[in-house]
Amino acid sequence: MATDAELFKCGMRRLAAGVSVVTAIDSLPHGLVATSVSSVCVEPTPTLLVCVNRNVSCHAVIHKAGAFCVNILRSSDVQLARRFSAPENRAARFDGYGWVPLTTGAPALLDALASFDCRVAQTIEVHSHTIFIGNVLSVRLPDTEIAPLLYLDGRFETLRADTATS
Amino acid sequence: MATDAELFKCGMRRLAAGVSVVTAIDSLPHGLVATSVSSVCVEPTPTLLVCVNRNVSCHAVIHKAGAFCVNILRSSDVQLARRFSAPENRAARFDGYGWVPLTTGAPALLDALASFDCRVAQTIEVHSHTIFIGNVLSVRLPDTEIAPLLYLDGRFETLRADTATS
Repeated sequence: MATDAELFKCGMRRLAAGVSVVTAIDSLPHGLVATSVSSVCVEPTPTLLVCVNRNVSCHAVIHKAGAFCVNILRSSDVQLARRFSAPENRAARFDGYGWVPLTTGAPALLDALASFDCRVAQTIEVHSHTIFIGNVLSVRLPDTEIAPLLYLDGRFETLRADTATS
Repeated sequence: MATDAELFKCGMRRLAAGVSVVTAIDSLPHGLVATSVSSVCVEPTPTLLVCVNRNVSCHAVIHKAGAFCVNILRSSDVQLARRFSAPENRAARFDGYGWVPLTTGAPALLDALASFDCRVAQTIEVHSHTIFIGNVLSVRLPDTEIAPLLYLDGRFETLRADTATS
């Protein structure tokens, strides 16, 4: 008999999500992979949220900086997502990709599908996690094909181009 | 030149998301389509969130009931998603599909990929939207293929089975 926690985790594995790298900066850049980014509202200020485990090192950096940048990954970014998921070799996470600060100083991935540079407007502590609500100060939106990296059932996935149904 | 709001909306269209129908009940069942569901934490109580526009009719019903049910849709549920997105014919939205109450009384879709029956634990008002944080009281998890309905760039999408990359 599965526990409630196990059933919940199994159920949540069925919720597909786009994959983002969320960055923040103190003296060095930090980042984490997130599948918990959501738009909150557009007016009067574009606002989004991300849920972050308090045990990840980037959590304290976001808190201290009061800012973060959400970078939506492409289907080709599996290696980058793995790098930011793995605990080892944190110092090299930002190597070999282009990053640029927008407004807050948090690194925006040059090759992201979209980047949202945010100032923390509100934090909500919910046990092991913090919901960071961010006011979006800058958006970087390359002119590109929209082919995102997805996460579902513990795996990275991509979309089939010919299945659009509307 | 795009406004900040337009840039934000264009950027958010690039964030893929699983599609859910969120239900609540007063004397009648109500529901809305959501792409803003996210897991929050597992311990001590499985907890999730959903962002809901205050202008949709179901918002007040969730508030009043203090409960809601998140139902993750399948790739084959495009018509159901359209039905719950359209403003007309609200009374017929629940017809022709099987629904069952779990713990709170909110309707769970029998054929959902997963259903999460939640008691509202906290509400955070952010301008036009409310973030409902729900403690999950019951999970319904059919034994089935995990083929979700996705939303990206203003369209419903499905996954290609042969593209798993881990």
